Amino acid sequence: MEKIKIAVVGYGNIGKAVIEAIEASPDMRLVGVERRNAAKTPELGDTEIVDDIKKLKEKPDAAILCAPTRMTPDIAERILKLGINTVDSYDIHGGIWDVKSRLDKVAKSSGAVAVISAGWDPGSDSVVRALMEAAAPKGITYTNFGPGMSMGHTVAAKAIKGVKAALSMTIPLGTGIHRRMVYIEVADGYNFEDVAKEIKSDDYFAHDETHVIKVESVDALKDMGHGVNMVRKGVSGKTQNQNFEFDMKINNPALTGQILVAAARASLKQKSGCYTLIEIPVIDLLCGEKEKLIRKLV
Amino acid sequence: MEKIKIAVVGYGNIGKAVIEAIEASPDMRLVGVERRNAAKTPELGDTEIVDDIKKLKEKPDAAILCAPTRMTPDIAERILKLGINTVDSYDIHGGIWDVKSRLDKVAKSSGAVAVISAGWDPGSDSVVRALMEAAAPKGITYTNFGPGMSMGHTVAAKAIKGVKAALSMTIPLGTGIHRRMVYIEVADGYNFEDVAKEIKSDDYFAHDETHVIKVESVDALKDMGHGVNMVRKGVSGKTQNQNFEFDMKINNPALTGQILVAAARASLKQKSGCYTLIEIPVIDLLCGEKEKLIRKLV
Repeated sequence: MEKIKIAVVGYGNIGKAVIEAIEASPDMRLVGVERRNAAKTPELGDTEIVDDIKKLKEKPDAAILCAPTRMTPDIAERILKLGINTVDSYDIHGGIWDVKSRLDKVAKSSGAVAVISAGWDPGSDSVVRALMEAAAPKGITYTNFGPGMSMGHTVAAKAIKGVKAALSMTIPLGTGIHRRMVYIEVADGYNFEDVAKEIKSDDYFAHDETHVIKVESVDALKDMGHGVNMVRKGVSGKTQNQNFEFDMKINNPALTGQILVAAARASLKQKSGCYTLIEIPVIDLLCGEKEKLIRKLV
Repeated sequence: MEKIKIAVVGYGNIGKAVIEAIEASPDMRLVGVERRNAAKTPELGDTEIVDDIKKLKEKPDAAILCAPTRMTPDIAERILKLGINTVDSYDIHGGIWDVKSRLDKVAKSSGAVAVISAGWDPGSDSVVRALMEAAAPKGITYTNFGPGMSMGHTVAAKAIKGVKAALSMTIPLGTGIHRRMVYIEVADGYNFEDVAKEIKSDDYFAHDETHVIKVESVDALKDMGHGVNMVRKGVSGKTQNQNFEFDMKINNPALTGQILVAAARASLKQKSGCYTLIEIPVIDLLCGEKEKLIRKLV
């Protein structure tokens, strides 16, 4: 069986996790990494590292984009135009439809496939949310995140004057309400109380219960575990009180990397265009023969 | 918008739940019911009731099969040949692949779509199992059923001599192990201890922890609530200890009916052939505009 050829764009936490997931996938092969600084990265061994995916010796079937989320639509467009499928974990919920519309045109005119927002939320959680909605069309779904580190809130806290280092933890309080626990190191010459006040009044934190705590070392608190708890109570047909719940406790980059890799596999089974995960049959995410998968999982 | 025309075949607990789900679906319309005994059923009002779906005044787009599971493949074949899509909740796990292969040929040659095993297990649970496997390809998934009534075990208990009425409850003990609580009314002239021994040695019960309890009225215990707890602990990429859990507590026929109706909707969006739920994009199960659904759920 010919293996699926994958390129990885970006080499941060997610890029590293994606490479591990590729190595663990019997049907895939890493053909290279695109990094802005293409200087050889010793731990990647013989892997080809380039500053532009076009320069790779082997043309990949799909590129997995592990750059910061705001950059991924532009990167996807550039790579789709080469006739290479792209997969990303674009995670700005409000922007997904626009990115999909934009990349759909590019993908179709290049005969390629883009899968966007294919991490865990948006991503695998979206599949569960859609399935719960199908099972009980009337009702409310709550998505509760954490406990785990919020990248967006951590960056927002770091941007406040007087913050030397920060870590913002998301704590689920149920019904989609979250507490923010912000651990900071205070820069010399700043007063902790003033800095804490500044953080709490920032737009990122002003709407949630926020606690700011001074610590000696933010680094000592860092853990990439995360979780989600999704709950739906709703109506199936005319029957009330149908209860559904999905829970996970996971290593964040590892799960994101694995879902991205599964989406890259699925991308090769779709017609050209741009897809979110809820538009793709779940079986396409899996490695293996259709008959075996159906016998095992259905 | 033209509504999807649905016929229901069979009018037991599931058939009734399906009709409720159709009535609750803004994009669907019930065009008739096929029953062996087509005598008018007062609660169905003006609904056309026929002994053969061919006789319906309006040709349905899809027929939802609510007959006993073993009969559904033959019924599906008969109806697919009329160019009408079929949806069923065929639930004999070991037979699914063969039914799919058989109906796939019929559906393709008739230009129709069959969706099989589209209840909750097999069905929506299968989608969650497949998704968990995509998220952590190495690992073990346990599906724990109940507490709830097992139809198969109840029928098996009733078949034992001396059992006047029976109800077999499935109790989850974790890791896919189940306890059977069998409530029986004993027929006149039979000894409870003998009957209980007979039940426990029946092949349906011999492999599980089984308790037989004598009651005055089995009917007084009946409740159509059921549940499932699915757990997967596995490996994403090379990261161990990724934990996933799906739980539900539901009215059994109501959920089955709702999923069947969602699958009927999805059947109209697939190319001709036979599908299980894991082969269908989850978004196709839902009512509404693609853009709105993606903005809401992804």
